[in-house]
Amino acid sequence: MKASETMISTLREVPAEAVIASHQLMLRAGIIRKLGNGLFVYLPFGLRSFRKVENIIREEMDNIGAMEFKQPVVVPGDIWKESGRWETMGAGMLKAVNRVDQDLVISPTAEEAFTAVIRDELSSYKQLPLVTYQINTKYRDEIRPRYGVMRGREFTMKDAYSFHATQECLDETYENFAKAYRRIFKRLGLSVIPVRADSGAMGGSGSEEFMVESDVGDDTLILCPKCNYAANTEKASCAPDIALDKDGKPQVETSAAIEKVPCPGVETISQMEEFFKMPSQQFIKVLIYKVLNSELDLTNAPGGKSFKRVTDESGIQHYPESFFAVAIRGDLDVNEAKLAANLKASEVELANEEDVIKYSGAPHGFVGPVGLAKVPLIVDESIMTLNNDGTFAVHVHDTVTGGGVADVDNIHVEPVRDFLPFMTADIRTVVEGDKCYNCGGTFYSKKGNELGHIFKLGYKYTKAMNVFYLDENGKQQIPTMGCYGIGVDRALASIIEEHHDENGIVWPMTIAPYQAAVVPVKFEGAMKEQSIAIYEELKNAGVEVLLDDRNERPGVKFKDIDLLGIPVRIVVSDKNLPNVELKCRNSSEMSIVSRTEAISKVVEIIKTELSSLNN
Amino acid sequence: MKASETMISTLREVPAEAVIASHQLMLRAGIIRKLGNGLFVYLPFGLRSFRKVENIIREEMDNIGAMEFKQPVVVPGDIWKESGRWETMGAGMLKAVNRVDQDLVISPTAEEAFTAVIRDELSSYKQLPLVTYQINTKYRDEIRPRYGVMRGREFTMKDAYSFHATQECLDETYENFAKAYRRIFKRLGLSVIPVRADSGAMGGSGSEEFMVESDVGDDTLILCPKCNYAANTEKASCAPDIALDKDGKPQVETSAAIEKVPCPGVETISQMEEFFKMPSQQFIKVLIYKVLNSELDLTNAPGGKSFKRVTDESGIQHYPESFFAVAIRGDLDVNEAKLAANLKASEVELANEEDVIKYSGAPHGFVGPVGLAKVPLIVDESIMTLNNDGTFAVHVHDTVTGGGVADVDNIHVEPVRDFLPFMTADIRTVVEGDKCYNCGGTFYSKKGNELGHIFKLGYKYTKAMNVFYLDENGKQQIPTMGCYGIGVDRALASIIEEHHDENGIVWPMTIAPYQAAVVPVKFEGAMKEQSIAIYEELKNAGVEVLLDDRNERPGVKFKDIDLLGIPVRIVVSDKNLPNVELKCRNSSEMSIVSRTEAISKVVEIIKTELSSLNN
Repeated sequence: MKASETMISTLREVPAEAVIASHQLMLRAGIIRKLGNGLFVYLPFGLRSFRKVENIIREEMDNIGAMEFKQPVVVPGDIWKESGRWETMGAGMLKAVNRVDQDLVISPTAEEAFTAVIRDELSSYKQLPLVTYQINTKYRDEIRPRYGVMRGREFTMKDAYSFHATQECLDETYENFAKAYRRIFKRLGLSVIPVRADSGAMGGSGSEEFMVESDVGDDTLILCPKCNYAANTEKASCAPDIALDKDGKPQVETSAAIEKVPCPGVETISQMEEFFKMPSQQFIKVLIYKVLNSELDLTNAPGGKSFKRVTDESGIQHYPESFFAVAIRGDLDVNEAKLAANLKASEVELANEEDVIKYSGAPHGFVGPVGLAKVPLIVDESIMTLNNDGTFAVHVHDTVTGGGVADVDNIHVEPVRDFLPFMTADIRTVVEGDKCYNCGGTFYSKKGNELGHIFKLGYKYTKAMNVFYLDENGKQQIPTMGCYGIGVDRALASIIEEHHDENGIVWPMTIAPYQAAVVPVKFEGAMKEQSIAIYEELKNAGVEVLLDDRNERPGVKFKDIDLLGIPVRIVVSDKNLPNVELKCRNSSEMSIVSRTEAISKVVEIIKTELSSLNN
Repeated sequence: MKASETMISTLREVPAEAVIASHQLMLRAGIIRKLGNGLFVYLPFGLRSFRKVENIIREEMDNIGAMEFKQPVVVPGDIWKESGRWETMGAGMLKAVNRVDQDLVISPTAEEAFTAVIRDELSSYKQLPLVTYQINTKYRDEIRPRYGVMRGREFTMKDAYSFHATQECLDETYENFAKAYRRIFKRLGLSVIPVRADSGAMGGSGSEEFMVESDVGDDTLILCPKCNYAANTEKASCAPDIALDKDGKPQVETSAAIEKVPCPGVETISQMEEFFKMPSQQFIKVLIYKVLNSELDLTNAPGGKSFKRVTDESGIQHYPESFFAVAIRGDLDVNEAKLAANLKASEVELANEEDVIKYSGAPHGFVGPVGLAKVPLIVDESIMTLNNDGTFAVHVHDTVTGGGVADVDNIHVEPVRDFLPFMTADIRTVVEGDKCYNCGGTFYSKKGNELGHIFKLGYKYTKAMNVFYLDENGKQQIPTMGCYGIGVDRALASIIEEHHDENGIVWPMTIAPYQAAVVPVKFEGAMKEQSIAIYEELKNAGVEVLLDDRNERPGVKFKDIDLLGIPVRIVVSDKNLPNVELKCRNSSEMSIVSRTEAISKVVEIIKTELSSLNN
């Protein structure tokens, strides 16, 4: 391609709205432009790289036998009502109503659409497994879109869905995806951190996220340097630790009765440490949460009957709104994602002051676990764990807790003796310094962005949407499902995050919009002739080559080619003719070579880099 | 590809909802499935053909130097407000509101989006022309989606937009598109009727529609067998004809004064013919129309001041609602598209009874042209035409018209003498039998569907959205624009309409999902071996080949391969081994050939068909 025949829209200045490298460089290199908030246009140069990302993903999907579909972007609201997510997806799902008053959804994901199609196509176990995917436009109504396409509203996603007769078959396909994802990210030149985790609430029995490190990441990762355990903080667990008393010794059970201590103004954990001269490990913090759409059965829980239970269109019973008390050791924090997962809820949030008092008798800071009658009490495993025989192992003793009325704390509180939980669960936020669940190593932490996610969905959608097949015995069965996503735009931005320097993008050969650029210092006379000859020879050799035939100063062209990240550059200048200068974007070395040498070297460099990435 | 590794979802029965061949076959061959009303899923087989259509379009766009972009599907409402189309697009444009109350549009087309991007990128005449395109999802809220993807709600469109400094440059690019479109349709195996027409209302000076014949076409085409004139009935003009009297002689001007004739119940033209014993050519029919968003200036028109005139966001003045009287020769019909174009209106519709009486004094059937004071009168050129000197040539005489009160007609009405128009215009519906404007040939008519449209837009969007560049003298100028669309889904369906028989689809080689199929009568023993060998050899020869390794009866497989439309079929059966049977889908001839011969023949057939379509 000649530069004069495409659109090179580079910017010298860093646009004020862009704070991360990929956003800045995608704007500066003319890859994208903003059309609206969270809505981006790909310009011709950028689209070439974008399509290469898509095609690598497509090849690897085809390689594992996944079949490409194309779903509509706008889908009927009805299928979302069938699955139950019409109500639970929240404000992030963009809805519309058409002129004949039908509800529509601008697809944020396509479990429903694929399940609906497979429901109609599937009749016999012989058709299974069915592994389907698409690469298509999605829309999620991000409340605060930012960082360019890293967190946009409209984006392109490869989303795959598999359907199986058996768990073993799902497991096998899942592993195929796990391997394909590793190949995809390698080919994209991306260092990903695969994060395996159980993902309770979503109903599946296995999931793996593929994360890239990012200072502005949405997610916090917990990593073990010893065993390579990696987990999203939303799911990470750590080894239990022993709670100590003020002398640094394990806490000892007390036989003293609970005593009420007036302590006005002593609300925070640090105020308590000072007031009681005790370590926060010996406090029990209790918080009241408002919980949306919990699918637990609260019939026999304290206060359970006061919450309204409803049955959704797919037959699942849930509590649109309920309240819970959550107890955790004083030095730890509740992880709301883990809490929501354990409560099988779509969302949890701290209750407002009024509700806190209504349900616990005291404002936050003085809520205690003792005598709570209006809400179920969830106790973190830092306080007690359930033994196999139904008894509890208690891990904190002689504790201080809120007194259940304002300005009063209780001391000498013993779990089990003084209160019992509705349920125990691991809901603590794991942090740097906590010990590895697997090997005892000391966790460290990083910020990351999710690029991909593979996930064993199980029967959630196939059950809700009545998908059946006949098994070998002619008996009706429900298939189990997996789902597998990769964000295309975010992958592209992440490649730039990982591959750039102060001069611009340094594309991996697999993604570069053009593999090589021929840059005449001036596009005239012998330089023009030589440039065109090299350009034509490279094209004939199968190289994707850009000829910078623009009437610009050489400095401008060099800066542009660097900014654009073209991997190999051939400069044709008067002073070297008939030789030319060869330079790779990822090295500072230059060499002066003959035209023939230039051609063969460029071909060789491209071949080597492609094969090192693709194999 | 092995049949067992993809999804062959054929249906024996014709689905009840499908009335046209392409819709039936797209369902029966498993190309599409319906997800919702006007919303379709492409299954793996269908998607292969769909992508081939896309790629042919893409190649031809790239060949004429058009640059591919990717716009968001969901775009800000703001840019539609800038262009003024937020209000004028009507209910066919799907809107949504996001969680932070911003207006969004699910793109029905992308003039605004491309104009917005080019506005930011364009600074100098040196950048012009800019020729841009995308192949992307669109949504139009069809009130009655039907005929499958032929008239769906969501669809894929190739839409291109060009920006120019001069009309000459636009003309040149327009001609490039005109040629590229012819190549595209040839490669798709489609017989299109190019329909050139001026398209007044849309503000441009040239347009060409590419139509395919279809019994259920949206459009009626007027065609001349002599000079190949082809026009959409919405725009077609015909040669003027001479209006005759009851004796078959040219009508003669009368000096008789208007006379009122009571004629209760004589409302229709045929009732009038009987009552007055005169031919309908001597009647003048007057209709009252409600007109939306007319951009005419009605300040000095009868009744003009009674209509509210507003200025939209782009500075254009229009009348959201106005009323017009429309006069036409009694034997002719008003063409509402031509009327709307002449009135620079977004829509026209017959006024309701109440408004007819309010504006004309009589109900429809008795409305007359004489003495109308409350509405501007538009007179069709069948009645009178404007001479260069400002006088009128009158083409009907001594006419009968409505009397302007119920149950009364006027006779001896003379145009000019008895009434003058606010404007004259060609608004008659041209029909079969009318004479060609160019050559006098006798028009015939066909139903058709529009597959593509190229159009000189002019300054409509660039002016409204303030696009500027600096010309050679540093002076600010506004670029002129062209736009060029092709419906991908509709093209695919039209290929099936043109290429099918009673057994199924007969794909042109360029679009076939697979070029050849190897069909073992049973997939076992020597037949299995031979089939796999042929399959592998064809793959190695670069053929896109399907191996039907399914455990199905031979009859089922043959029926499926025919239905799927695979161009070349190789049947491997016991009785012919080691030879095989070769048959093309578009012929009934079969030949028994050796394996080697089969390979070379298949390669040759594919090569020949591809080159005949592509060149």
